[in-house]
Amino acid sequence: MEQLKIADKTFNSRLFTGTGKFSNSETMRDAILASESELVTVALKRVEVGNQKDALLSSLTHESLSLLPNTSGVRTAKEAVFAAQMAREALETNWVKVEIHPDPKYLLPDPVETLKACEELVKLGFVVMPYIQADPVLCKRLEEVGAQCVMPLGSPIGSNNGLKTRNFLEIIIEQSNVPVIVDAGIGRPSHAADAMELGADAVLVNTAIAVSPNPVSIAKAFKLAVEAGRMAFEARLAPRATQAQASSPLTRFLYE
Amino acid sequence: MEQLKIADKTFNSRLFTGTGKFSNSETMRDAILASESELVTVALKRVEVGNQKDALLSSLTHESLSLLPNTSGVRTAKEAVFAAQMAREALETNWVKVEIHPDPKYLLPDPVETLKACEELVKLGFVVMPYIQADPVLCKRLEEVGAQCVMPLGSPIGSNNGLKTRNFLEIIIEQSNVPVIVDAGIGRPSHAADAMELGADAVLVNTAIAVSPNPVSIAKAFKLAVEAGRMAFEARLAPRATQAQASSPLTRFLYE
Amino acid sequence: MEQLKIADKTFNSRLFTGTGKFSNSETMRDAILASESELVTVALKRVEVGNQKDALLSSLTHESLSLLPNTSGVRTAKEAVFAAQMAREALETNWVKVEIHPDPKYLLPDPVETLKACEELVKLGFVVMPYIQADPVLCKRLEEVGAQCVMPLGSPIGSNNGLKTRNFLEIIIEQSNVPVIVDAGIGRPSHAADAMELGADAVLVNTAIAVSPNPVSIAKAFKLAVEAGRMAFEARLAPRATQAQASSPLTRFLYE
Amino acid sequence: MEQLKIADKTFNSRLFTGTGKFSNSETMRDAILASESELVTVALKRVEVGNQKDALLSSLTHESLSLLPNTSGVRTAKEAVFAAQMAREALETNWVKVEIHPDPKYLLPDPVETLKACEELVKLGFVVMPYIQADPVLCKRLEEVGAQCVMPLGSPIGSNNGLKTRNFLEIIIEQSNVPVIVDAGIGRPSHAADAMELGADAVLVNTAIAVSPNPVSIAKAFKLAVEAGRMAFEARLAPRATQAQASSPLTRFLYE
Repeated sequence: MEQLKIADKTFNSRLFTGTGKFSNSETMRDAILASESELVTVALKRVEVGNQKDALLSSLTHESLSLLPNTSGVRTAKEAVFAAQMAREALETNWVKVEIHPDPKYLLPDPVETLKACEELVKLGFVVMPYIQADPVLCKRLEEVGAQCVMPLGSPIGSNNGLKTRNFLEIIIEQSNVPVIVDAGIGRPSHAADAMELGADAVLVNTAIAVSPNPVSIAKAFKLAVEAGRMAFEARLAPRATQAQASSPLTRFLYE
Repeated sequence: MEQLKIADKTFNSRLFTGTGKFSNSETMRDAILASESELVTVALKRVEVGNQKDALLSSLTHESLSLLPNTSGVRTAKEAVFAAQMAREALETNWVKVEIHPDPKYLLPDPVETLKACEELVKLGFVVMPYIQADPVLCKRLEEVGAQCVMPLGSPIGSNNGLKTRNFLEIIIEQSNVPVIVDAGIGRPSHAADAMELGADAVLVNTAIAVSPNPVSIAKAFKLAVEAGRMAFEARLAPRATQAQASSPLTRFLYE
Repeated sequence: MEQLKIADKTFNSRLFTGTGKFSNSETMRDAILASESELVTVALKRVEVGNQKDALLSSLTHESLSLLPNTSGVRTAKEAVFAAQMAREALETNWVKVEIHPDPKYLLPDPVETLKACEELVKLGFVVMPYIQADPVLCKRLEEVGAQCVMPLGSPIGSNNGLKTRNFLEIIIEQSNVPVIVDAGIGRPSHAADAMELGADAVLVNTAIAVSPNPVSIAKAFKLAVEAGRMAFEARLAPRATQAQASSPLTRFLYE
Repeated sequence: MEQLKIADKTFNSRLFTGTGKFSNSETMRDAILASESELVTVALKRVEVGNQKDALLSSLTHESLSLLPNTSGVRTAKEAVFAAQMAREALETNWVKVEIHPDPKYLLPDPVETLKACEELVKLGFVVMPYIQADPVLCKRLEEVGAQCVMPLGSPIGSNNGLKTRNFLEIIIEQSNVPVIVDAGIGRPSHAADAMELGADAVLVNTAIAVSPNPVSIAKAFKLAVEAGRMAFEARLAPRATQAQASSPLTRFLYE
């Protein structure tokens, strides 16, 4: 399968993961390693900045893993820029997942503040990965200000509802010149395969792995599903038919 | 992962395949081997009965593969029973996939004739695998007459539309004491994973592999997807939520 | 709008209703009259046979209403035939809705017993209206034995889930020579309109009206929705488009 | 049914219509009157500004109808403001539907420019009705800058695909303090009923009426469907069930 390239990094795995909601650090580490994910988001607010022995960070120190700080918890572009700068300092990375959600109930992203933050952060030398609604026009505008990828949501975060925004993801994928990473709503391996078959470049999965009774197995299942979907996308699937087509075309009945 | 047991056979792979619509025998063989499928349907009408050197059969001779003759092309129970007997003779197997579809356009199964044929065939010592609508009551009746599994359809055959019968498949899986194999309509790896996550015991895929531009890759993709879905089923997935749940629960905003 | 003809009766309303689950007889009567329904199912088991003053029956005596006894509660063709005969005696009608559901949990119909019962009942002079799965082959067989209509379900009874069997209903409507009445699963006026737009000849609604906090208003809403859907079907709707088509085609931008 | 109030106007009808794509002015007028719509969008670019005898305008002069100029064809907030001012002059109304879609293919709205335009137009004394993605955060921001309603899309414009954005419309309706009008994607009366049942305050329908073979009948059908959906919403529908619930609860089988 083709490698995925974002900014200066190259990924073998198209499954990105997160660190929220795991019952403990060891399970988290085991599950993330089992997923073979190479990019892992971590909420800045969960890192004990300046603490050399931060438990979360030390459990994620692994040669195959890059950390992707996110700005979860901020409500404005200004706060996001500040958080990104803190993260760059603390985690020694200029990558940042921009999440600006003023509403604590649904955690849906603010399109206007997100665009503003990304524009500013790109100027400050960041590699920005914005979490946004599946809004094709916003995606193009983010691309124009220099976002290195876009991260449209599949359905409300944590809902595990799959690709409810399918119609818009298709347009985004068709129009985008930067990688499209489906984020939020992917609750089952089949959802991840679905996104990859559609042509997404990667998916980000967190809740579905973290809160399952068996995170390591689910992580492996997602790994396989992402590979399956990508493999099918690259090999081109058969088109849908509106009418039944016999697998064994029925040119005649057997006994006539 | 758990092995699947049907009658006296045990399967490591939960992906069953078919032999229709491939462009040539070599591609068919390569794709089926790539899928790691251990049970392959073959239409009786496509076998040159009595011909020791039948091209289709010889290309499928492989230690890991069992052949499953189907009765495609028959319109009544009587014809199905006759076809099954022919197949037993020709292919030296008492397994038979019972397909009775009087309508050549949509190839949908006849519930009444299928039940009658299965009842008769079980008495004649066959292992019957009936292809049927996703009809929970019919599934129970087939189980009662001795069918060793049921094969409800996901959507019209060859439509590649996925699990349109989901609501009924769930009831069938809940109620069944024999393996449930989703047959027809599975057009993408994500559909196969979806069926397995739902609790299906196996899936049968033919058209989606055979008519793709790259059957070997698609076959591998289906293999991975079936494993992903089964692994997730066995490990138990997280439930769907109706409201967003933050991956990183938002107890407070970052700057307040 | 065209009138609907079944056997010897002609209907102005394409909304059939039921009598189950209402909180009391008066509300039931008011709601049914508000719906302008002309055919109302009544479970034989709920009628006090031989009682001239049966409360249910007397509340439904109205010139615009025909009663349609159903065989709910029977498990075999034999029981259904017996129940139909009882109903003919008690209610003085040779119409019968054939419902045979051996499973008390999901109340899904038995295809084999239903076909057998209908064949017998037609011979006995009944007008039979069979409640069945959305099974196109079974529908044709019922038509062949003389059923005057077919009543495929939209989704499991009482689920209010709408037309989950859409793909199969489309095939049934395309192939049928007798009226197709969608029964079960219609939980909202939009579901009823949906069925009518698809080309169903009528719908049967019970639970959604009976258990609502305001049955009379909901009954009126269903009446309007059925008319809306039928009107649109007769006038032919615009086809779906896969790509956006501007309402006001954009030949040029406004300021260029 | 409750009346709908937007800014200083009160509406009996919750069906708004448009003027694009009709084959001729007479059919347009007849269909709009048949719909009983009281608010009709008209693209500024289609009006011959300053022409007293503009054919489109004169055909729409009717006491029950208010015109709602839209800014279709503009790509920026600045152009939108200018177009709104032109429209106010030409049509003598301070109402304006703000449509800013830089992409001529899918005509999807630009969230950032739309917010900017609305903020400016409100200051200039306009009643603004913004056409937007089903983006809950954007809706709140529009409300904050003084938009008198929001017009989220159901699916891509002209697609006739219904409420693909259902999950987000539900959140918007839950959170909004101004009327929510579902715009774009409503292709069938059942879609309109669906939106109203969900709690939308109104719907805007254009393509589905204009391009049908029989616009007057379809317009009437939409009128009925909107009323049906609203009536059901006000009367409260029954909830969905996950398991079948018998209309006639089966406490026992009939013959046992």
